[in-house]
Amino acid sequence: MPERSDPRRSLLIIGGAEDKVGRVTILRRFVRLAGGRKSNIVVIPTASSMPDEVIEVYSTVFTRLGCPSVGSVDPQSRVDSSSEELAERIDAASGIFISGGNQLKLSQLIVGTPLGKAILRAHERGAVIAGTSAGASIMSQFMISMGEEGVTPRQRASQLTQGLGLVPGVIIDQHFDQRSRYGRLLSLVAGSPSLLGMGIDEDTAAEITNGREMTIIGSGAVFVVDARMAQTDAHEARRDAPLLVTGAVVHSLPYGATFDLETATLTDFVERHADVAVTAAKDQHDTATAAAALRH
Amino acid sequence: MPERSDPRRSLLIIGGAEDKVGRVTILRRFVRLAGGRKSNIVVIPTASSMPDEVIEVYSTVFTRLGCPSVGSVDPQSRVDSSSEELAERIDAASGIFISGGNQLKLSQLIVGTPLGKAILRAHERGAVIAGTSAGASIMSQFMISMGEEGVTPRQRASQLTQGLGLVPGVIIDQHFDQRSRYGRLLSLVAGSPSLLGMGIDEDTAAEITNGREMTIIGSGAVFVVDARMAQTDAHEARRDAPLLVTGAVVHSLPYGATFDLETATLTDFVERHADVAVTAAKDQHDTATAAAALRH
Repeated sequence: MPERSDPRRSLLIIGGAEDKVGRVTILRRFVRLAGGRKSNIVVIPTASSMPDEVIEVYSTVFTRLGCPSVGSVDPQSRVDSSSEELAERIDAASGIFISGGNQLKLSQLIVGTPLGKAILRAHERGAVIAGTSAGASIMSQFMISMGEEGVTPRQRASQLTQGLGLVPGVIIDQHFDQRSRYGRLLSLVAGSPSLLGMGIDEDTAAEITNGREMTIIGSGAVFVVDARMAQTDAHEARRDAPLLVTGAVVHSLPYGATFDLETATLTDFVERHADVAVTAAKDQHDTATAAAALRH
Repeated sequence: MPERSDPRRSLLIIGGAEDKVGRVTILRRFVRLAGGRKSNIVVIPTASSMPDEVIEVYSTVFTRLGCPSVGSVDPQSRVDSSSEELAERIDAASGIFISGGNQLKLSQLIVGTPLGKAILRAHERGAVIAGTSAGASIMSQFMISMGEEGVTPRQRASQLTQGLGLVPGVIIDQHFDQRSRYGRLLSLVAGSPSLLGMGIDEDTAAEITNGREMTIIGSGAVFVVDARMAQTDAHEARRDAPLLVTGAVVHSLPYGATFDLETATLTDFVERHADVAVTAAKDQHDTATAAAALRH
């Protein structure tokens, strides 16, 4: 008998405000990874202040995209998150979707509980875990929360809290371009330089396979900052002071980029936003020139 | 007779909104570089839509800081900028201050004219040239203008125009943190990777000596992006698409940092925003521990 192969472990980490009515690129990808017409999806709306609306919206979209079974899990306390019944619903799911809202509510109610452990187990057995906005950040082991807008990193501009730990070496921020979160992300990486910083734009997702290979889909970009060889003054700068961060390496990765999270390098890129008109015109010109040259 | 030494060539490039009523750190530095009580300063208010107010404000501040002679040069056309009289006023100055406003007005009215050449000459002979906001950007050879806010670089988010050329290899942007100009600066560097991108925060200045050594003063930071070894898709991405930029090296440089613009590396750093309380407490603790250890 052939050896049973390891399951493909997929995460879909979304920067918030993903398209739900147009091409639905990202949520379509999620349903596909969850098994499409054979999927069993559980929505966790707990971060949101409007959980019923969240469940309704995503149930509608996932059903339209072909999912035959959408349920939800919405613990109100760590006691709830310890119930066997909730963990069993997670154990039965082929896809788990964590909504936006307040990520500190997720770390308060889920991290380290039997429900949290069931989510980690689901990832290990090959169920896809998706999260948007707060649901994206909670996937980190070291989770970002709070902070001001702006591009200059400042001492204590943001903070770290324990997250689910689905992505151990990466701090995940979201609404990155729309809320100008470059500075707050860099300020955390300055203090913990062995963690990669990742900032995901709205309507954009990082799909991480087997903990290492990341591909980008959606209309924005994923920003990665690698400060592992950088020099900073995060050990001595006073609160709110602009931080010294010198020698960090950055990557802005749009749709079509594939990135290795271990080496922090681009491994593949397929242009998805090409200027078709310009490219076509240039090719025609080149062909015409070549043809003319051949005739003489 | 000893050989006459080359003059020290100084530029003071300010990110806009520099303090004029408190410690006046940056403008004080400017007057000092211009010769203090022996200085002869010319203000160029031409970028501004309120040139009279600009002249009044800076004249007051520079006079308070000890400058005995503040004049102005305000050409309204390239014909004006060709007048010998204006060039002579620049030739007599020990410090030239270019105000904020619309930098395209400066490239229209001054770049390449006898007045523009007089400014370059002044720099060569050792007069200090300062510029704030638009007056900072115009110092580049390749000058940035126009563009949206945001941190994700997008194709054609900004544009280049010919500047004065006081800083040949650097694109200078300003109000950098306050207006979230990371994306627009990166989009230009993606297309011209041999140019360094520099973004200066408000109330912050880069002092460049002899075209190479840069030191930072003021309350914010100076951002530098070095995309010389980066990979981008700026040759084929369509308009407004998020750009691929992978492997750019970035530096956030606060007060006290010294940076070599040729090698694009930090050469010195003196912490100016130290958390004095924390540092003192730690030192006491270390001393106490050491003393205790020595007693046993």
